Amino acid sequence: MTDMPFPAIAAAIKKTLEGQVFTKLVGAQVVSVEPGVVVMALDRRPEVLQQNGLFHGGVIAYLVDNATTAAAATAIDRMTRTVITAEYKLNLLAASTGDRLTCRAEVVKPGRSLTVVEAKVHCRIDGAEKLVAVALATIANLDLVRNTDR
Amino acid sequence: MTDMPFPAIAAAIKKTLEGQVFTKLVGAQVVSVEPGVVVMALDRRPEVLQQNGLFHGGVIAYLVDNATTAAAATAIDRMTRTVITAEYKLNLLAASTGDRLTCRAEVVKPGRSLTVVEAKVHCRIDGAEKLVAVALATIANLDLVRNTDR
Amino acid sequence: MTDMPFPAIAAAIKKTLEGQVFTKLVGAQVVSVEPGVVVMALDRRPEVLQQNGLFHGGVIAYLVDNATTAAAATAIDRMTRTVITAEYKLNLLAASTGDRLTCRAEVVKPGRSLTVVEAKVHCRIDGAEKLVAVALATIANLDLVRNTDR
Amino acid sequence: MTDMPFPAIAAAIKKTLEGQVFTKLVGAQVVSVEPGVVVMALDRRPEVLQQNGLFHGGVIAYLVDNATTAAAATAIDRMTRTVITAEYKLNLLAASTGDRLTCRAEVVKPGRSLTVVEAKVHCRIDGAEKLVAVALATIANLDLVRNTDR
Repeated sequence: MTDMPFPAIAAAIKKTLEGQVFTKLVGAQVVSVEPGVVVMALDRRPEVLQQNGLFHGGVIAYLVDNATTAAAATAIDRMTRTVITAEYKLNLLAASTGDRLTCRAEVVKPGRSLTVVEAKVHCRIDGAEKLVAVALATIANLDLVRNTDR
Repeated sequence: MTDMPFPAIAAAIKKTLEGQVFTKLVGAQVVSVEPGVVVMALDRRPEVLQQNGLFHGGVIAYLVDNATTAAAATAIDRMTRTVITAEYKLNLLAASTGDRLTCRAEVVKPGRSLTVVEAKVHCRIDGAEKLVAVALATIANLDLVRNTDR
Repeated sequence: MTDMPFPAIAAAIKKTLEGQVFTKLVGAQVVSVEPGVVVMALDRRPEVLQQNGLFHGGVIAYLVDNATTAAAATAIDRMTRTVITAEYKLNLLAASTGDRLTCRAEVVKPGRSLTVVEAKVHCRIDGAEKLVAVALATIANLDLVRNTDR
Repeated sequence: MTDMPFPAIAAAIKKTLEGQVFTKLVGAQVVSVEPGVVVMALDRRPEVLQQNGLFHGGVIAYLVDNATTAAAATAIDRMTRTVITAEYKLNLLAASTGDRLTCRAEVVKPGRSLTVVEAKVHCRIDGAEKLVAVALATIANLDLVRNTDR
């Protein structure tokens, strides 16, 4: 692993995610970055809803994609390697009628070439956190020199 | 099934998808709606990219989510039933470096309570269509009176 | 829900699983059946291994399939409804080199038509339990009169 | 790639699969091995059924697991690399009431470290082939020296 202290790694990951133009478009924030765990959130705005006033499934997928990949990124040596989403499965469980989505992604198994990450998405509805989605993702760890081929 | 002619069904589905505020935010279009098959597309704009200039994975997931659900919607009686995404799995295969994403979703197996749909996403890169993602989705068919519980 | 006491439900589920001829072929046991949670296990025998002496992936899938479906079965009214596997995703995490596999399936979200269940599979290796697989399943709840169509 | 001619590669893959003790227990055969495509099949016997007389889901998963991994194995240099199942998702579509299961796995995207493979399982029912399951798998390609860590 690198000698970079974890707070610097966490800051770099947060900066990368929040610097994505799509993240700004969606309006998501990185709540926290800890070893193996990343939390992202998104407040209700008309732009991120579908036709029935629920958060759009694509927004939930965006959170899952970014948070799982970032959680895997906390488990690699950033000097020599990078991460890229290989695949994920997402179950939508209940209607996201509330005012804020929070996605918590946690590494289940770090690996040399693949890291497996679970995610749970809660929606704050009338002040209570309701589980609205669950996901399971596989993140590929690649050498920095060839970072776009899976 | 309903007596509504298919062109009217197709127009209703297209209108629903393109009327979603999130669809406008992302800038996606419904290319075609046929029985069992829906095609959606999205042109490159800075807003839908990630930090390396590729289409964001969340955008690909948005296309898969909407196109698979819409394909399932072509297979139900819209007078009495509706569709809702139960789950999907998405494999990202190659870097989306091009200028346009096209997602084609096709029903594999229509069912009474569940419809299974495959999707393939191509990216137009230097004029050629490259396969960049593949997905497999399960869409729930619900009676209209209880359309938010899975 | 039915008036049948839970111990009778648990006994009926255990009897169904252990009565499957394939279960006998594989040599699996139902360790416990509680509301929302089912545990199954399998001891090492040459017949359930692959070419490198690890438990075969198909055996792990068998455990996941049965345990997740059984966990969902604890959450329905068995007088009027039944369960059937709609789909699952399975990540294999590490080599199953040990002497016993244990799969614990737990309902994440019971639903009217679909129940979502997580499963974790551990392998006992030199006396320690190692996580070797994780899965996420969608189980369909059907009326007893039409129990083979999804 | 290796200089080994493809028929020799196909024979080696077939021998590995059919040599698995679990394959013998289940009674499966390798029907064909071509570049990127592997077909496996299984005839009805009481031992591979579940309580309603259908092929057991675990048997379908076994076929998917083996056929997808073998299809990926046709796409690597066998002198220096090996394959291992990273994950798959399996949708069960219809009741397997017939007398023979056939699983066809086809590589969608070969890659340096990951190969993505689709599979379709048909059941022969009254002489007709019915689609009963569809799957999407990610197979990891590893250097031979470290072949059990994902």
